[in-house]
Amino acid sequence: MMAVYTEIGTRDLEAFIASYDIGGLLSSKGIAEGIENSNYLIHTEQAHFILTLYEKRVQPEDLPFFLALMHHLADKGVSCPVPVYDRKGNDLRRLAGRPAAMVTFLEGMSVRRPQVKHCALLGKAMARMHLAGLDFGLTRPNALSVAGWGALLEQSRGHADEIVPGLAAEMETEFAELKASWPTDLPTGTIHADLFPDNVFFIGEQLSGVIDFYFACNDLLAYDIAICLNAWCFEEDHEFNVTKARALLNGYRQVRPLEAREVAALPLLARGAALRFLLTRAYDWVNTPNDALVKPKDPREYVTKMRFHRRIGGAGEYGIDL
Amino acid sequence: MMAVYTEIGTRDLEAFIASYDIGGLLSSKGIAEGIENSNYLIHTEQAHFILTLYEKRVQPEDLPFFLALMHHLADKGVSCPVPVYDRKGNDLRRLAGRPAAMVTFLEGMSVRRPQVKHCALLGKAMARMHLAGLDFGLTRPNALSVAGWGALLEQSRGHADEIVPGLAAEMETEFAELKASWPTDLPTGTIHADLFPDNVFFIGEQLSGVIDFYFACNDLLAYDIAICLNAWCFEEDHEFNVTKARALLNGYRQVRPLEAREVAALPLLARGAALRFLLTRAYDWVNTPNDALVKPKDPREYVTKMRFHRRIGGAGEYGIDL
Repeated sequence: MMAVYTEIGTRDLEAFIASYDIGGLLSSKGIAEGIENSNYLIHTEQAHFILTLYEKRVQPEDLPFFLALMHHLADKGVSCPVPVYDRKGNDLRRLAGRPAAMVTFLEGMSVRRPQVKHCALLGKAMARMHLAGLDFGLTRPNALSVAGWGALLEQSRGHADEIVPGLAAEMETEFAELKASWPTDLPTGTIHADLFPDNVFFIGEQLSGVIDFYFACNDLLAYDIAICLNAWCFEEDHEFNVTKARALLNGYRQVRPLEAREVAALPLLARGAALRFLLTRAYDWVNTPNDALVKPKDPREYVTKMRFHRRIGGAGEYGIDL
Repeated sequence: MMAVYTEIGTRDLEAFIASYDIGGLLSSKGIAEGIENSNYLIHTEQAHFILTLYEKRVQPEDLPFFLALMHHLADKGVSCPVPVYDRKGNDLRRLAGRPAAMVTFLEGMSVRRPQVKHCALLGKAMARMHLAGLDFGLTRPNALSVAGWGALLEQSRGHADEIVPGLAAEMETEFAELKASWPTDLPTGTIHADLFPDNVFFIGEQLSGVIDFYFACNDLLAYDIAICLNAWCFEEDHEFNVTKARALLNGYRQVRPLEAREVAALPLLARGAALRFLLTRAYDWVNTPNDALVKPKDPREYVTKMRFHRRIGGAGEYGIDL
């Protein structure tokens, strides 16, 4: 694993920290977390913070949405990093030529191989986050939902068969079917849209918080669940673990009951979520030079998952009580 | 800048932390510091620590020397990371297939462009470290002093002229002269041997500590000073700054007076220190593939420095009062 980050001069950093009311700078360490942005763990006389410099993959015009969402969720009791305001009341700043923000440090550890208990805790936390986000005032369309897949497919179609023979045609068919039947009448709200295990922290037997809201957007709430079924409920060998899915879904429903049509749509949404990550991984796979610093994730994992969801008879196979 | 590190599974890390009496694990971040080892900033219920996994550049048989030296120096009041003993009394452990050690976290920031005041503080701290190390019981020869340069020269001679035309011959001559006149009668002790600005931390107007003892060894004390003259007293354009050198030397002498023959030997020792870093940088320069993750440091900086020390009339040109 590796991190590439923008270096900040000590004096620039000291001046930056001094523009906040958080005490003097004691230490700063570049942390190897996430490949999208540069992150520093900052210790001041008052507390610990994460300072993020937003690199090219994040659209600067989206940053006010992400920062405001973290404020909103934190105000509603969701445990997540909270952007810190400087002395002038700004949370979005510039540093080392990049957009930058400081957020509070969130304790906890992500789990590489989630167990059933983690899935149950995730389900509850996601439902609480969905409820807390219902009255969030800003909106951001999901560029990586069904409306965006056609363009992504264009970009990787030519090389898709190098990943798995026949994959281009398989993705075309899948996209056409999903586009034709994608639900439009399900409850919507603010979703995280990237709730993978590395973005959820635990301490002992508790979920301590959720991080990395840089894909958050407005979309079907059940689509967030579908992403998590893909990201949390398959084993290392890509076999589906129905016990984990049941724990996730039951945890969620304890906090926010699912409508019958949301449950019924889950297999379709899960196919869509699998296609979405297949498409971005396939794009990175064929567009990353062999000598790149960051190795792309294997897209084939999501071929297997997409096929699983296409094959099943209904949401009952996720272990949910219908 | 970048870091490549060994990943540790959450459960492995939790079990590892539980073998120490330092409270439960709250968070762990891989930090992008140093290119030789993998470093994690660990927060437990009790305190912050740095967990280091030693990668291939460190000889495992040297680790007891380095760890014992940090204990020794800390016991004598030198501010440096202190290795933590586990419940069985071991400080050197294994984790993720590598030798590993946990040390206390040292607050502070390194300065990229040291000022005169930093050089004065460095001089004092280095002298205190030299005095504190005089009665350290273990020994480790300096493989990167004059006895080791011949082998290094062999390895880069063939490509040296690609760095600077004529460099191979220049290094040969320099090595021969230094070897013939290298002093053997100067005070010796335990030296840091890599006291570059990134290994010295400051908080405000104070030097808060010294890190990275993984080149420490027994050698001439004045050779450590010579390394620092090279590493701290040249400007970005490689021009020598005599005000910084004077501050460094006077700071040192306030704590540990220099013998006249140490002062007289400084230009020769500084040529040697310049050659030592030129040799290792030249080796890395010609042996690092173009697409490597870590870009090698430019060896030409040390050609300029070596020539400077060869040209001067005597130690008086370092600003020292003779």
